[in-house]
Amino acid sequence: MDFDAYKPAVLLDLDGTLVDSVYQHVVAWSEAFQAHGYEVPLWRIHAAIGMGGKRLVPWLLRGHVDDTEELSDDHRRRFLDRADQLRATRGAAALVDDLERREVAFKIATSAEAEIRDALLETLGRTDLASADADDVGSSKPAPDLLLATCADLGVEPEDATLVGDSAWDAEAARRVGIRTIAVRCGGFGDDHLLSAGADAVVDDPGALIGRL
Amino acid sequence: MDFDAYKPAVLLDLDGTLVDSVYQHVVAWSEAFQAHGYEVPLWRIHAAIGMGGKRLVPWLLRGHVDDTEELSDDHRRRFLDRADQLRATRGAAALVDDLERREVAFKIATSAEAEIRDALLETLGRTDLASADADDVGSSKPAPDLLLATCADLGVEPEDATLVGDSAWDAEAARRVGIRTIAVRCGGFGDDHLLSAGADAVVDDPGALIGRL
Repeated sequence: MDFDAYKPAVLLDLDGTLVDSVYQHVVAWSEAFQAHGYEVPLWRIHAAIGMGGKRLVPWLLRGHVDDTEELSDDHRRRFLDRADQLRATRGAAALVDDLERREVAFKIATSAEAEIRDALLETLGRTDLASADADDVGSSKPAPDLLLATCADLGVEPEDATLVGDSAWDAEAARRVGIRTIAVRCGGFGDDHLLSAGADAVVDDPGALIGRL
Repeated sequence: MDFDAYKPAVLLDLDGTLVDSVYQHVVAWSEAFQAHGYEVPLWRIHAAIGMGGKRLVPWLLRGHVDDTEELSDDHRRRFLDRADQLRATRGAAALVDDLERREVAFKIATSAEAEIRDALLETLGRTDLASADADDVGSSKPAPDLLLATCADLGVEPEDATLVGDSAWDAEAARRVGIRTIAVRCGGFGDDHLLSAGADAVVDDPGALIGRL
């Protein structure tokens, strides 16, 4: 691909993209489902990661369930209990430094709940980074609301922005509004899955993008 | 695909195929690596699952390390500590019943260590099922030694056998000796990954194969 074709306004997904958190999410959701009497295959949970919790639960349980709130709370508690195991993905902090040094407009675009977002930013070592509050911007990914709100914050048109994300839901949300997506493999999603959801390119991790956005 | 073309001698991978164990393996390996001072991205660990531990550690750490044995022991302990979270994959027990009822020759083909194999068979509810002992058959997957030993046990030629497995390492081992592979998605590996490793077909889980092997 021709990286020179990309305009320099960058939206960065956080959960799974800048922090290596997907597998801990999968196990935390599995434990929460089991605790509430649901058996959900872990590969299906993996495929749902990247949606907001309010969407993920009914998507996996195939319909509205009354205990979505309790399941989300249980997942959050279990995930945060193992937050000390989290690490930044390869090159994540260096990519943020690189964007700042080169004065590329960028912003974190995450639909993670506030408590989880704060834990992820702490893992990244960048609690100073601002992001649009997921609770304020309507529907979560794959709805594009958050991405549009973040573009508005940055003062750029969607077609001038590039999203870096790890999940098919990122790519799908971006495609709906004409934002380019570079997908990273570090969330554990297959290339075919990411490309068929609309990703324009796939690289291993944020480290592969230093100097190139 | 034409399932009728498959001859009815079946090798069943256990770990990740009949038991939903891959994500717990990933997290257990990650914890073991961290405890020994190594940082390995979780998606890379996922990609290595299905190899024997003696191969997995040097593959991930890019060379021989002195503490492969300690890392494997630590992983095993952490994995077994959460064995009560394990569940059979969808249709796994029913597929075994189906093969027995239809008198299809089959055998478990696993390179899991004895203690882990026993925990997995217990999860499946079939501690009576025999398997070739991985320690007795030379190199682990992607080497085909275990698959050849299992074919010999069954008294079939490799080209008359079909392996059901969840990882690229299963498909690669089988391809080397002319065994067909049907891959299941329930280990969380992408279709392109499985097919490019040599899988002949991909289905969701063992439940999709009932009555068809």
